[in-house]
Amino acid sequence: MKQSVYDLTQQHRSIRQFKDEPLSKETVQKLVEAGQMASTSSYVQAYSIIGVTDPDIKQALKEVSGQQHVVDNGYLFVYVIDYYRHSLINNETKGNMETSFESAEGLLVGTIDVALAAQNVALTAEDMGLGIVYLGSLRNDVERVGEILGLPEHVFPLFGMAVGVPSDDEQGSPKQRLPFEHVFHENQYNSDKTQQLEQIKQYDKEIQDYYQKRTNGKRSESWSEQIRKMMSKKTRPDILENLNVKGFMKK
Amino acid sequence: MKQSVYDLTQQHRSIRQFKDEPLSKETVQKLVEAGQMASTSSYVQAYSIIGVTDPDIKQALKEVSGQQHVVDNGYLFVYVIDYYRHSLINNETKGNMETSFESAEGLLVGTIDVALAAQNVALTAEDMGLGIVYLGSLRNDVERVGEILGLPEHVFPLFGMAVGVPSDDEQGSPKQRLPFEHVFHENQYNSDKTQQLEQIKQYDKEIQDYYQKRTNGKRSESWSEQIRKMMSKKTRPDILENLNVKGFMKK
Repeated sequence: MKQSVYDLTQQHRSIRQFKDEPLSKETVQKLVEAGQMASTSSYVQAYSIIGVTDPDIKQALKEVSGQQHVVDNGYLFVYVIDYYRHSLINNETKGNMETSFESAEGLLVGTIDVALAAQNVALTAEDMGLGIVYLGSLRNDVERVGEILGLPEHVFPLFGMAVGVPSDDEQGSPKQRLPFEHVFHENQYNSDKTQQLEQIKQYDKEIQDYYQKRTNGKRSESWSEQIRKMMSKKTRPDILENLNVKGFMKK
Repeated sequence: MKQSVYDLTQQHRSIRQFKDEPLSKETVQKLVEAGQMASTSSYVQAYSIIGVTDPDIKQALKEVSGQQHVVDNGYLFVYVIDYYRHSLINNETKGNMETSFESAEGLLVGTIDVALAAQNVALTAEDMGLGIVYLGSLRNDVERVGEILGLPEHVFPLFGMAVGVPSDDEQGSPKQRLPFEHVFHENQYNSDKTQQLEQIKQYDKEIQDYYQKRTNGKRSESWSEQIRKMMSKKTRPDILENLNVKGFMKK
């Protein structure tokens, strides 16, 4: 018997090492079709999905991301916000739709549309026994990604996704998330500072224990240490400028 | 036998009429747990989920959205980007993490994190036989939503989701998406204008046929007509200002 989607979600972990088994065309098509059926804001369908198999293009994208699994995988998807077809409709009808799709709201709509579609792909792939990893690392250089993939105005690359049969070396277990009570609020947001700081401390301990056990004591970084290190220098400072260049966040 | 996730995705349609059967606490917890296991950018977990059962709060949110199903449902979730706990860590350590979470990149990371979690909730709910609808309509007045839910700085409401047992009146079939070949590009984005316009025309015809059949000829709006109407006035012009007020898109 197939497992429930709930059970499937609880087994998720990112897979970064894949067997050398390319996905079939049929599988790729099914994954994209699954993505397309996700909810979309007011039927806007503001995304496209680029499937990359060309070794030179994969290599070029790998240079942006710095990750070997951008090249070595069963298949590589790149997910882009796409208002290009909306802009063509706009030109044909001499409209002013750009006030919508070039606004902050337009960026949110597009980003949400892309992510809902991508997560449908992710769960569908995992249900087929495949592993996935999101590649936010493509945002290291969105200008370059735009060149590599030939992205026109009103198209913006959000992230990639490597998919494939997990390698036998890929051990590990799902990574512990923030406890349910930290993330879930009843009726109103609980912004009590003392309580939230207490929760973070408690979670930090759990994560330290988890790493210590997994690495035989070699690593014992807490969650807040990781987050502090990661966020203490501005990552991807060129995103806003590149959004503007591509016709986003202008109005 | 349980169906595959692929099959589940292909049956999706938004449900806006629910039976008067509140979700159990256990179901709500399972749905949130499913959301939490979605991928998260660099472990940042930049979201919270607010479960709303209080009738007054539901009514107030309904006034923002204008939709009766914000009140009448089995359960109501509101999904928020949440860097509040990151800002507390930042204050404690006198860091400069705000350069990350107050940037355009920070907004993308948070929006993607929220949406991936929400889509896990959606598919898990649908797998349990429940129906869902996303409520982007809460962005009609994000300032008011912030007041109603007590959202502090660095917390931004992205959308709601009504969940519940579909009413027997809820007929209908999945809404036809853009054809696979329009959304899927191989190796590079195909920005050929003539070809894309031809594709839109073809899709417009399909959608017109679909509406005509469904409404016995009463409605025959094409996709591009819908999109043009919807986008021709700027929707939610206050989003950027409200993002700034809440500490987003500042750096």
